[in-house]
Parts: sequence; C-alpha cells; structure tokens
Amino acid sequence: MLYIVGLGLGDERDITVRGLDAVRRCAKVYMEAYTSLLSLGLDPSALSNLEKMYGKEITVADREMVEERADQMLREAADADVAFLVVGDPFGATTHTDLVVRAKNMGVEVKVIHNASVMNAVGVCGLQLYRYGETISIPFFTETWRPDSFYEKIQNNRRLGLHTLCLLDIRVKEPTLESLCRGKKVYEPPRFMSVNTAISQLLEVEELRGGSAYGADSLCIGVARLGSDDQKIVAGPMKKLLDVDFGPPLHCLIIVGETHPVEEEMIEFYMIKSSAAEDEQ
Amino acid sequence: MLYIVGLGLGDERDITVRGLDAVRRCAKVYMEAYTSLLSLGLDPSALSNLEKMYGKEITVADREMVEERADQMLREAADADVAFLVVGDPFGATTHTDLVVRAKNMGVEVKVIHNASVMNAVGVCGLQLYRYGETISIPFFTETWRPDSFYEKIQNNRRLGLHTLCLLDIRVKEPTLESLCRGKKVYEPPRFMSVNTAISQLLEVEELRGGSAYGADSLCIGVARLGSDDQKIVAGPMKKLLDVDFGPPLHCLIIVGETHPVEEEMIEFYMIKSSAAEDEQ
Repeated sequence: MLYIVGLGLGDERDITVRGLDAVRRCAKVYMEAYTSLLSLGLDPSALSNLEKMYGKEITVADREMVEERADQMLREAADADVAFLVVGDPFGATTHTDLVVRAKNMGVEVKVIHNASVMNAVGVCGLQLYRYGETISIPFFTETWRPDSFYEKIQNNRRLGLHTLCLLDIRVKEPTLESLCRGKKVYEPPRFMSVNTAISQLLEVEELRGGSAYGADSLCIGVARLGSDDQKIVAGPMKKLLDVDFGPPLHCLIIVGETHPVEEEMIEFYMIKSSAAEDEQ
Repeated sequence: MLYIVGLGLGDERDITVRGLDAVRRCAKVYMEAYTSLLSLGLDPSALSNLEKMYGKEITVADREMVEERADQMLREAADADVAFLVVGDPFGATTHTDLVVRAKNMGVEVKVIHNASVMNAVGVCGLQLYRYGETISIPFFTETWRPDSFYEKIQNNRRLGLHTLCLLDIRVKEPTLESLCRGKKVYEPPRFMSVNTAISQLLEVEELRGGSAYGADSLCIGVARLGSDDQKIVAGPMKKLLDVDFGPPLHCLIIVGETHPVEEEMIEFYMIKSSAAEDEQ
C-alpha cells in the first residue's frame, strides 16, 4: 500500500492523527522535497523534527528522484506499506496525480490522507472560497522569458467579480544554465517569489497589455507563511503592498474581486494602515 | 483564546496533532453542528468517539445556538482557552468568518487550525484544483421555489473551459412550515441532496433555460463521503450518473470542463462501466 500523506502547512504537528498512525506503520517513508525543501532548506532542524515525531527515517525525494525512482518506490509499496509525505494536501497546489496513475497502472493500492492546502487555508483571509475564479501561477520573469498568459485569466475572473489566488514561483534545485552546458549539474540557490516581486511583475504586464484587468489601486491581499504561527496577512492597494516586508517565504497573493459585507469586515482587520502624511491629505 | 479547529473530512482521527493538543488544553469545547450533525446524526457513536479521543466533553452547538450564544462562548474565550470544532476546514465550504469578526471586535484572540476541506480534497478526483471556476451551491427545489442562479455561473465556467464544483444542499434542523405557523418549532428530518437529485435538477434547469451550458452527455464526477474510508467516486455523462447509487451522504458533484491528458488518465479510473448491451451497440 502506498500512503500519500498530506502534512499540512505548518510544521511536524500539522499532520493528522490518521496520517501519523499510517506513517508509523510504514516500512519506508519518503518525502517530496519540491515544496518541502522550502522549510527544510530554511530550517535545517525541520527534517529531524519530523523524523523524531514520526519515529522513522525519512528519505527526501527531490523532483528528479520522484520522476526517476518512482517505480522503485512503487515496487516497494507493492509488498509493504510505504508512505510518501507531501507538504500541504496531496492534491493541492502541487498535485501528485501522475504518481497515483502510475501506482494504479502497476496495481499498487493507494490511500490518500488529506490535509490543509493553500487552496483552502487561504480562506482565512476572509474571502469566501466559492467566490474564487481560476487560480493562476506567476513565474519569475527573466531578461528573455516573460510569460504572461495569466493576464487573461485574471481579466476573466475580474469580469465575473471573482477573486484570484496567485501562486508564486518556487525555484528549487534548478540547474544553472552554465552547468547544463558543461554536462555536470550545479544547482542555483533556491528562490521564492515575494508578494512584492509578484505585484511589480503584474503591474509591468498590465502596462504592456493595457487591458485594465487591474491596476496600482486594485485591492489585494498579500499572505506569507500561511498556516504557520508567524503567518502575515496584509491587505491594501497593489501600490502600497509593493513596499510591505512580508518576511520569509512562502508567499501568495490574492487579487480581490467584488466583495460582500462580511468579507469586507474581515479584510478591514488586515488593511494596511495609512501613514499620517496620507491621512492629512 | 478561541481556537477554531478544523476536524477534516473523515472521523475523529482526522484532526491534526496540533489541533488535538489545542483541544486537550481547552477549558471548554464546542462543536459546530450544522454540517457535523451529518456524521453525528447518522452515527450516534461519532460524538462519543470524539469525546473519548479528545478527553473532553463536547457541547454540540447548532446553528441557532452559534448565532444566539456566540457572545457567551466568546466571553468565555476572553478568560480561558475555548475550542470551537468545525468539520472540514474553518474556512472551507461553510465559513466561520462572522465568528472571527465578532471575536476580533470583542478583543478575543483567535487561532485557526486548518484541515482538509471538500474545497481541496476534491482534488483526489484527478482534476487540477487551479482549473476550477466559481463553486456553486444547488438548493433543493420545492413546488414553488426553484432558484437557478447557479446556471450562469456554470455557463461562465464552461465557456472558460473550467471545472465546476457543485456543493449540494444540506437541510439540517429546518423548522417545519406548520410548526412555524403554530409558534413552536418542530424540525424536519435532516435531508442531504444526492448526486442523482442534483443532476436531475440541473437537467431540468437546462431544459428551461436552453443555453446549452451542459447537457445529458456532459461529463461529470459524482463524489460521496469524500475523505472517508468508504468514499465513492464515479465519472460519466450526466444521464448515466442519474442511476448510480452513491450511498449515504455527503455527496458533491463536479461538472468537468476542458481536460488535460493527466486529468483524463485519472478520470478513466473512475469511469462508469458501460453495460454489455451498450458495448454491443
């Protein structure tokens, strides 16, 4: 049996009791590192905290390993109980559908243990989840690569009065271009997009496209470290959030659509304070 | 401190370790009954299982009580640790934004402990969560009340190629019309909309509106008891799902939009088998 276990959004204590029982039963425990490298990379004690709590050694599997060695893991799961740990929910922002398909094709039983994901925990901002449109991803722009297909999606959502959740780029274990040319992989340091970068890219695209999908005055909510003890949520127009220091990753951003009174009351708690100078204007 | 603790979707073991620690620390434990009455109503042992595991007596608070006695609960939370348990996630399909707003206005600190919700766990069907449009709710039609404002929302989602999650009506502790007239409340037995009823109402509305938002051949996925050990997921055209017995509640329904290959592979596992007679045609 392959248990795909969501770990939730905070630390080792955000696993469910059902998930913990499953992990402790398993002969082997893997952990998806693509998003989890985040916490592991920032806090070297995170992995050992997990191992201590679960009473198991954990093999961290980066994206390459999951792709290359998935079959090995699935063969193990054919004969024994194997856990594959995933930050958030197994089918949240990063999905593991392909792993489930492979497992089913190999006749390996799969059991999913759900947990919170950014896709639902973002409800804590006070905007109703059912009033969100399509979720978009904003990639890091480079000199030569500035994909902006998210623009139409935001435009569609806003035409319908819907909120837009923007997932921000995570670049973990990306080989440097130079190292690829030399044939031996050297990895770039991990990068996580901040709310500030996301907004500045969004405003750049709006200026280029000119479709008035949003603008510097559009109300947004910046969210950092959602679900952690030190999560930070700040609402305000794009131009004001540009300068807010949200601290360490992960960040995400919500472009607010039409709001209902109860949504507005909640947003008010998160609203950025105007400076005294502005109040006097 | 008021802890609003998500219980997840299955049974008492779906609480997170962080949530369990909080509940065990609390002086008083309330439980929202609007959606939880579901499991409690169907399985009388569910509440005592929760109480046993948490080592606490639980006061079940129905919707009336939450509305009428929220202030009392919040006053208790001003001086002591109080837990308010919620099935799924505190900000999932049923949100508790109003409670948070009240608490903040009274100066009571609130801590939210997230968990899985139908809004993210539905990812298990294999459709990518970011490819969902606005979520709709389908209410029970009566002789005289057949609201269909969800129709345009489905139409908008489908025009954009997006999937539509349909949340199905739950009628718990609804006073009978007769009892309201007599001034003493008598409650109707709880009712939960099935996938079959939802589809038959949807087809009725399509016939009336004639906007070709969807039809009897539109691919849907019916889901029952999401996140439980006996969850049931069946994909197929609306007309075929009409006759599938999904068993006990809760049910929800997904109207599938445009699909990607990896989504199609997953849906294939859930696809309803054609009868032999049809195969021969």
